[in-house]
Amino acid sequence: MQSRYFTINDHPQGAPARALFELRETALPALAEGEVRVRNTWLSVDPYMRGRMSGVTTYIEPFELGAPLEGAAIGEVIETRDAAFPVGTRVRHMGGWRDIAQFPGSRLEPLPAFEVPEQAYLGVLGMPGMTAWTGLNRIAGMQEGDNVLVSGAAGAVGSLAVQLAKAKGGTVVGIAGSQDKLDWLESHGVKAVSYKGKDAAQLTEALRKACPEGFDVYYENVGGVCLEAALNTLRVGARIAVCGMIARYNEATPSAGPGNLAMLLIRRARMEGFIVFDHWAHYPTFLEEIGPRVESGQLDYEETVEAGLERTPDAFLKLFEGANRGKMLVRL
Amino acid sequence: MQSRYFTINDHPQGAPARALFELRETALPALAEGEVRVRNTWLSVDPYMRGRMSGVTTYIEPFELGAPLEGAAIGEVIETRDAAFPVGTRVRHMGGWRDIAQFPGSRLEPLPAFEVPEQAYLGVLGMPGMTAWTGLNRIAGMQEGDNVLVSGAAGAVGSLAVQLAKAKGGTVVGIAGSQDKLDWLESHGVKAVSYKGKDAAQLTEALRKACPEGFDVYYENVGGVCLEAALNTLRVGARIAVCGMIARYNEATPSAGPGNLAMLLIRRARMEGFIVFDHWAHYPTFLEEIGPRVESGQLDYEETVEAGLERTPDAFLKLFEGANRGKMLVRL
Repeated sequence: MQSRYFTINDHPQGAPARALFELRETALPALAEGEVRVRNTWLSVDPYMRGRMSGVTTYIEPFELGAPLEGAAIGEVIETRDAAFPVGTRVRHMGGWRDIAQFPGSRLEPLPAFEVPEQAYLGVLGMPGMTAWTGLNRIAGMQEGDNVLVSGAAGAVGSLAVQLAKAKGGTVVGIAGSQDKLDWLESHGVKAVSYKGKDAAQLTEALRKACPEGFDVYYENVGGVCLEAALNTLRVGARIAVCGMIARYNEATPSAGPGNLAMLLIRRARMEGFIVFDHWAHYPTFLEEIGPRVESGQLDYEETVEAGLERTPDAFLKLFEGANRGKMLVRL
Repeated sequence: MQSRYFTINDHPQGAPARALFELRETALPALAEGEVRVRNTWLSVDPYMRGRMSGVTTYIEPFELGAPLEGAAIGEVIETRDAAFPVGTRVRHMGGWRDIAQFPGSRLEPLPAFEVPEQAYLGVLGMPGMTAWTGLNRIAGMQEGDNVLVSGAAGAVGSLAVQLAKAKGGTVVGIAGSQDKLDWLESHGVKAVSYKGKDAAQLTEALRKACPEGFDVYYENVGGVCLEAALNTLRVGARIAVCGMIARYNEATPSAGPGNLAMLLIRRARMEGFIVFDHWAHYPTFLEEIGPRVESGQLDYEETVEAGLERTPDAFLKLFEGANRGKMLVRL
């Protein structure tokens, strides 16, 4: 059987070009004992993948040039030599960026049993959802009534973070770009602030207007002016969970950081970076808490879907244009 | 009785000039019930006082133009209407920058009973010592065997931080400027690295050479290139205690921050600002632990002393030239 997959032909500096990505094809060998073959139905593209394209080890191994890229995916077992995964089993695994994946069964997870569309396990009930929950609860230690600021607030992670924050009370403010994202935030009881066309001073002003008391928690997805403005609006004892800094991922040479880091001192604030994979032991707790709320419709989530394996690089590149609302997915 | 005191005649932008400080004299009123008059013997000057000169409230009220400046001081009670403080009692209080202070007794502390020179209660056993101890233990959560980096490592706070870190094992590296400071560090088993003439890349290189494994704890007194280089040399799970950023205190407009804050994410590191006054309830624990080690000579401390009230502003300004080793004091 053939497997079509994407690879990269270089380590990009700055914003990756579409031509970086090459679609290749390979003949899969016969299944070895314990192996499983999966036909993927949904692929995830996520901002963190940009880091793996740079050819340096950060918190995760870099992608190898010429080899299939990796990423979360959902699929169905079509051939098996692992009794734990009979044909027809719906699974999640890291063999994305391809149509057919072949692995030892140990690298697959059966999908949990909530009554939700299966692609939810790539988004609200998958890594992005777990990231939102971990950052708010385990890193920022959000308390009942805290005022919470979220950047990238209409993205896959941010859109869940604002809803989880809202459910615990306090003023919740989300920073986003386009009007439809701002509208989505407002329709969920979140005060929406646009960063578009604003420098740090202007964004600071807008945040102060939205929440004059200041913030106890800042959920950081973006970096750049969002971080600088957020630092200006912290309350004493504030906690910043640094989930990502998408504004910087495509920089060829890093731009300077915020000039107001001393606000950490003035506000006795804490800023902490985290990687959700370090916290994966808590995924069952997350599922137990959040799964029923997604099933019942209490937690809303959005998807932006591209169709067809060929569109996977395009879906990925759109993440950096802010073109997605909610989780960016590829449907095969 | 007359009291001579220093005040400031303006809110400085950038580095304060000597002419900012004016020596004035006032006739003290007769003691009210509960008040005490103190002849100061030692005055403390500290970097944090620069923040109080800027006319804005940060974590502490700004100094008032024309009013006596404030700061820690040691003195002897010379007249009293508070039975708790008989004449001759040695006390510590915040009525520094003057020769004679007059206060309600409630604003005085009797000196603890360790056999140390009384000015030690302004340095190694006072606010700077408590700051070093709090940052390492309560903020950075230093563990046995941690590798520790300290900037401003030969200053009042840093010189104690390196020794406390050294006593718990691991590689301890101190960043300082002048050769005599570097020598002092090396003589205490601390690997000394000069920041002089180095950009962030060069300082990073020097830190990597001093401690190839990287640091579990960074005790931040300085900011600027020290912070940028430190961020490059963190281990996974590192903690940064932000005690001060003296490199920035005299900036008229804040310079940009480090371009590599994303290292917090890559290393899952935590950066936390603190103000020692928030932790003062733990001062007795600190004294109990550190007092005997100072008394026995096990912990070394240095002093840089200026003589005479008139020299107080000069002593203060020298802090920003890196001219002091250990605690900067004025002896009256």
